[in-house]
Order: sequence, then structure tokens, then C-alpha cells
Amino acid sequence: METGPGAAGVFITFEGIDGSGKSTQARRLHDSLTSQGRDAILTREPGGSPGAERIRRLLVEGAAEDWSPISELLLFNAARRDHLERLIRPSLSRGAVVVSDRFADSTRVYQGAARADLRALADRLHADVIGLEPDLTFIIDADPGTALSRGLARNNAEDRFEGLGLAFQERLREGFLELAAGAPERCMVVDGNRPEDEIAADIAAHVARHLG
Amino acid sequence: METGPGAAGVFITFEGIDGSGKSTQARRLHDSLTSQGRDAILTREPGGSPGAERIRRLLVEGAAEDWSPISELLLFNAARRDHLERLIRPSLSRGAVVVSDRFADSTRVYQGAARADLRALADRLHADVIGLEPDLTFIIDADPGTALSRGLARNNAEDRFEGLGLAFQERLREGFLELAAGAPERCMVVDGNRPEDEIAADIAAHVARHLG
Ligand SMILES: Nc1ncnc2c1ncn2[C@@H]1O[C@H](COP(=O)(O)OP(=O)(O)O)[C@@H](O)[C@H]1O
Ligand SMILES: Nc1ncnc2c1ncn2[C@@H]1O[C@H](COP(=O)(O)OP(=O)(O)O)[C@@H](O)[C@H]1O
Ligand SMILES: [Mg+2]
Ligand SMILES: [Mg+2]
Repeated sequence: METGPGAAGVFITFEGIDGSGKSTQARRLHDSLTSQGRDAILTREPGGSPGAERIRRLLVEGAAEDWSPISELLLFNAARRDHLERLIRPSLSRGAVVVSDRFADSTRVYQGAARADLRALADRLHADVIGLEPDLTFIIDADPGTALSRGLARNNAEDRFEGLGLAFQERLREGFLELAAGAPERCMVVDGNRPEDEIAADIAAHVARHLG
Repeated sequence: METGPGAAGVFITFEGIDGSGKSTQARRLHDSLTSQGRDAILTREPGGSPGAERIRRLLVEGAAEDWSPISELLLFNAARRDHLERLIRPSLSRGAVVVSDRFADSTRVYQGAARADLRALADRLHADVIGLEPDLTFIIDADPGTALSRGLARNNAEDRFEGLGLAFQERLREGFLELAAGAPERCMVVDGNRPEDEIAADIAAHVARHLG
């Protein structure tokens, strides 16, 4: 329905496989921006608004086979639309930097490339009901074995997408890299196999250049 | 994705405004079919399968403003897709008569005509992710004042779409009548202002002719 970046603010997303370090780096970037006195918000998907968090619970808890690929794709888009209308758009309109832990690229890769051949439907839905792309996307690229062991160490109830094995994580990793190659002006691939501080410094420097 | 009626069975839906008598008549038709020894199932929307019933709770409980019209439309389609894959298609495939209390026409009228100008998006979504039309649809046409007082008499927690007033119910009623006029081979408008038994007899006779 709408295209192009949000009015005045800057929209930054973090993407990558489970355990690659997205949540860690999104939090660190948000901390660094607010400590510089910037108006910045930290949010996540699926979720990020009260309605979307209710949908998140349907998506991340339970068994992998609870939802068919198409129902799941619709639920992700319902949550994203709510997040967009209730939090992302209003924050961008007032000029904030919005930092989101996952956004539409996760749907493109998980629902489009890996779980079923739904990429064309995912793209049509995105164009119809979302239509916003981030200004900057960091794709944290980590070795699937390392990322999987990091992710499993967290050990919480939101495991519907985990436990799908190393081969699945490798397919996802390749999906994220392909996606980055197709949108180089927006996506920056970051080597996530390094220490947290090094990664955070690279990201902060890139964002500082972007914010000017 | 798929079009046309289901393989071997017969798909019958009941539509109309709140309190018009859909649930009553759907139950009566199902009772009459099973008492004739037919393989028939009674289901409803939103809901009808375990996943779709979880989505139903998001949709029917809470306040009218909980969901934006587009998120709501996506949630209805997510629930319908689940219902279709898990219950409707398998039942039709084995040759059953599926009687559903509401289906896609409710979305066309509620989301498309009455709540926002989303009819075109509703139609694209239906074509993309549902693609099935009933063999027969009964539109129970009742006076909105009478229907509203019947509906309010039920008095349960699922009231997110009620209490929107008589003018809204009148717009919905007109939406259902227009829809029936546009698909006369599938839709039969039934006068719902009469006694229950009379309506049930008309419906049973029409279904008997259809089943041959
Ligand atoms: N660069 C890193 N090196 C080692 N461990 C890390 C690194 N980044 C994150 N971690 C740890 O790995 C786990 C997963 O990180 P997290 O940021 O939650 O990943 P994601 O959000 O991508 O699933 C956490 O326990 C986190 O503390
Ligand atoms: N023909 C009718 N005449 C009078 N009351 C009716 C009739 N049909 C249904 N009712 C009553 O009206 C209320 C609403 O009917 P219901 O079948 O639940 O409507 P809907 O499912 O369309 O909202 C119920 O209390 C029901 O018993
Ligand atoms: Mg995370
Ligand atoms: Mg009812």
C-alpha cells in the first residue's frame, strides 16, 4: 500500500539465522544510539506491538506442524502489519531511529526459501499489506554450528523454529546471503563469528556514517 | 491456489448478519442430514480447526479497535486457510456434506463492504490462499432490529463485532443481499423473519433437491 522509507526517521533491521547474534547486536546498537542522545526505539518481530505479540505466541510456541506454511505466512503478515501501524510508522514519523530484531527478510527466507516454495506469495503479500523496506539491514552471518549451539544455550519455550537441524540452518544462511546480494544498497553482511565487541563497533561505525 | 468445489462432497455455508439465525439453521440442517444417515459435519468460522479456533479468540474477544482492518483481514484468512486444509478439504474429499456457519462471504461483507474499503484486497487474498467457493450458500435475511435484539439476548464474551449499532447492521445486510444478487447460482436468500421451523423446512427442501 505504501512504499519507500518512512517519513523522517531511520529504520534499521537485524537479520540472520537463530543464534547469530541479532538480539545482542540490536540491543547494543540501541544502547549506543540512546547514549548519544538519539531518539531510538528497540523492537522485534514477530511482535513489537500488543496485537503482534499475541500473534507471536501463536507462532513461536507449540509444534512445527501446528501451522501450515500458508497460514503461518498470513500470521506473520498480520503481526507485521499491526507492528507497522501501531509502532514503526508512528515512530518514524516523529523522526526516531527504529531498530528491529528481524523484519520482512526473515519471512522471505524462512517462509519463502526454506519451508516451502512460497516466495512469490510472500512477495505479493509484502507488496499488498506492508510495502516498507528498512533503510539499513545488518545480516549477521554466523557459522550454523556455532549459532545453533549459542541458540540452544538460551533454552526457552519459544522453540518452534529451532531443533530443525544444521542442514536447515545452512539453507537459511544461504537464503540470507542471497537476499543481501540482491539488495546491496540496503543490506550489509557482518561476520558474526567474531567477538561481540568487534561486531558492535563495525555496526556502530556504519550507522554513524549513514546518520551523517 | 485451487478453485472450484471440493472433490466429492458438498460444501454448504450459512451467511447473514448477527442474530439472523445462521447457527440455528446450520445446526438444524446438520441434524436433518445426519438423521437421514448422511455423512455430514457441522463447523463454523472464524474457527473450525484447532489452529483457527486459537485465531478466533484473537478476533472475537477484546475491543473493536484491537486490530486494524488489514491485520484483521489477514487473521481471518490465516484462520480460514487452516480450517480449509485441516477440516474442510479432507471432509469433502471423503465425500461428506460440510455445513459451515459463516465462510468467505462474511469476510467479503464485513471487511470488504462495511469496515473499510478492502474489498479488492479481500478478493486478492481469497484467490491467492483460499480459492474454494461453497456449492450452496444460504443467506439468512432478517430485519436488523429483530436480529440485533436476538443477538444481544445471547449475551456472551464474543462481542467484538456486536454493539456496532443498527446502521452498521443495515449496511451489512445490504452487503449480503448484493453479494447474493451477484452469485445467484450459488446463493439462496432465505427470509429469516419467520418461525424457525418454516425456515428449516425451506432449507431442507432446497438441499434435498441439490443432493438429488
Ligand atoms: N559474537 C558473539 N560471540 C559469542 N556469543 C555470542 C555472540 N553474540 C551473541 N552471543 C550469544 O549467543 C546467544 C545467541 O545470541 P542472540 O543475540 O540471542 O542471537 P539471535 O538473536 O540471533 O538468535 C546468546 O546467548 C548471546 O549472548
Ligand atoms: N427464526 C427465528 N425466530 C426467532 N428467534 C430465532 C430464530 N432463529 C434463531 N432465533 C434465536 O435468535 C438468536 C440468534 O440466533 P442464531 O442462530 O444464534 O443467529 P446467528 O448465528 O445468525 O447470530 C438465538 O437466541 C436463536 O435461538
Ligand atoms: Mg534473538
Ligand atoms: Mg451464530
